[in-house]
Amino acid sequence: MQYIAPLAKLIEHFRALPGIGQKTAVRLAYHVLDMEPSKAKALADAILEAKAKIGYCQTCFNLSDQNPCQICASDKRDHSVICVVEQPQDVAAMERMRDYNGVYHVLHGALSPLEGVGPEQLKIKELLPRVADDTVKEVIMATNPNVEGEATAMYIAKLLKPMGIKVTRLARGLPIGGDLEYADEVTLSKAMENRREI
Amino acid sequence: MQYIAPLAKLIEHFRALPGIGQKTAVRLAYHVLDMEPSKAKALADAILEAKAKIGYCQTCFNLSDQNPCQICASDKRDHSVICVVEQPQDVAAMERMRDYNGVYHVLHGALSPLEGVGPEQLKIKELLPRVADDTVKEVIMATNPNVEGEATAMYIAKLLKPMGIKVTRLARGLPIGGDLEYADEVTLSKAMENRREI
Repeated sequence: MQYIAPLAKLIEHFRALPGIGQKTAVRLAYHVLDMEPSKAKALADAILEAKAKIGYCQTCFNLSDQNPCQICASDKRDHSVICVVEQPQDVAAMERMRDYNGVYHVLHGALSPLEGVGPEQLKIKELLPRVADDTVKEVIMATNPNVEGEATAMYIAKLLKPMGIKVTRLARGLPIGGDLEYADEVTLSKAMENRREI
Repeated sequence: MQYIAPLAKLIEHFRALPGIGQKTAVRLAYHVLDMEPSKAKALADAILEAKAKIGYCQTCFNLSDQNPCQICASDKRDHSVICVVEQPQDVAAMERMRDYNGVYHVLHGALSPLEGVGPEQLKIKELLPRVADDTVKEVIMATNPNVEGEATAMYIAKLLKPMGIKVTRLARGLPIGGDLEYADEVTLSKAMENRREI
């Protein structure tokens, strides 16, 4: 005998979560068994409730419990600027910054031919009619600063340019608080290339 | 705005799990939102089912979906030997070894005056009537090899000795596959003290 069936099943479910290995899954499962029944029920309910209440905004495709989402529906946001990101998590990161007052568009991934992710798999065709609207003046490509993110930014920029729209990309350079000594060459070279007079 | 309410709640629940920090909790919550609804429901159900079906064996206090548990109920196990461990996880570890055929007693902790864990908080008084039974010949103290585990083993040994029972403790020494160079001094000194002729 190893683990009893309901425990083995719970361990397996925890293991299927990202970044959770066998040992962590076992520890989590034992912890759940050790919880007050009401607390365990609250955890299960939180999972079900989040799934039931949260869907995608049909304008920007960010996660939301309303449609359109709070940001798309707000008249305090600048609807003439659209920031294009890969994932809902990236919207949260941008919002934490508190500097951006435009709206978003979530692609739900980045182009990656090796992993079979083409333009059809992303929310790109949903972006075009938004941009076609005359009110939009700028699209900020805030996809990740890696190969896939760059390729995606370039692909979308090419689609948008003929529409006469201004397409920008987040600046590349040294991270604040970083150490010049430990900066990788590409970042350093970009920082050099984009240097500004002070 | 930061996270929408049902998402924030789910993140909070994940954060309450052991070894899960803010970043992991956020990643897990987003993953749940990204899951197939049926998979998310299966995860929630696994939590509820494990809690509902698994309780404690009223003999050995190991986790079990039956009472007495499979081990306590088995006539293939040697009921004259009781292995005393701190946690249900320790039973699983012992069972993985496949060498032990006796039964168990789970204390659910170890004596720790600093954390307010005294003998009353542990399943010690439940052990005594089991040992008083004439069939029991040996009690193996398999509490953890640390200060609390040692103190617990000594405390219980003192209680059992007057009952004329043989009380043993798991051997201390170098772990198999370990490196002499990296062994800590206490382990090395114990290994030296308990050296055997070959």
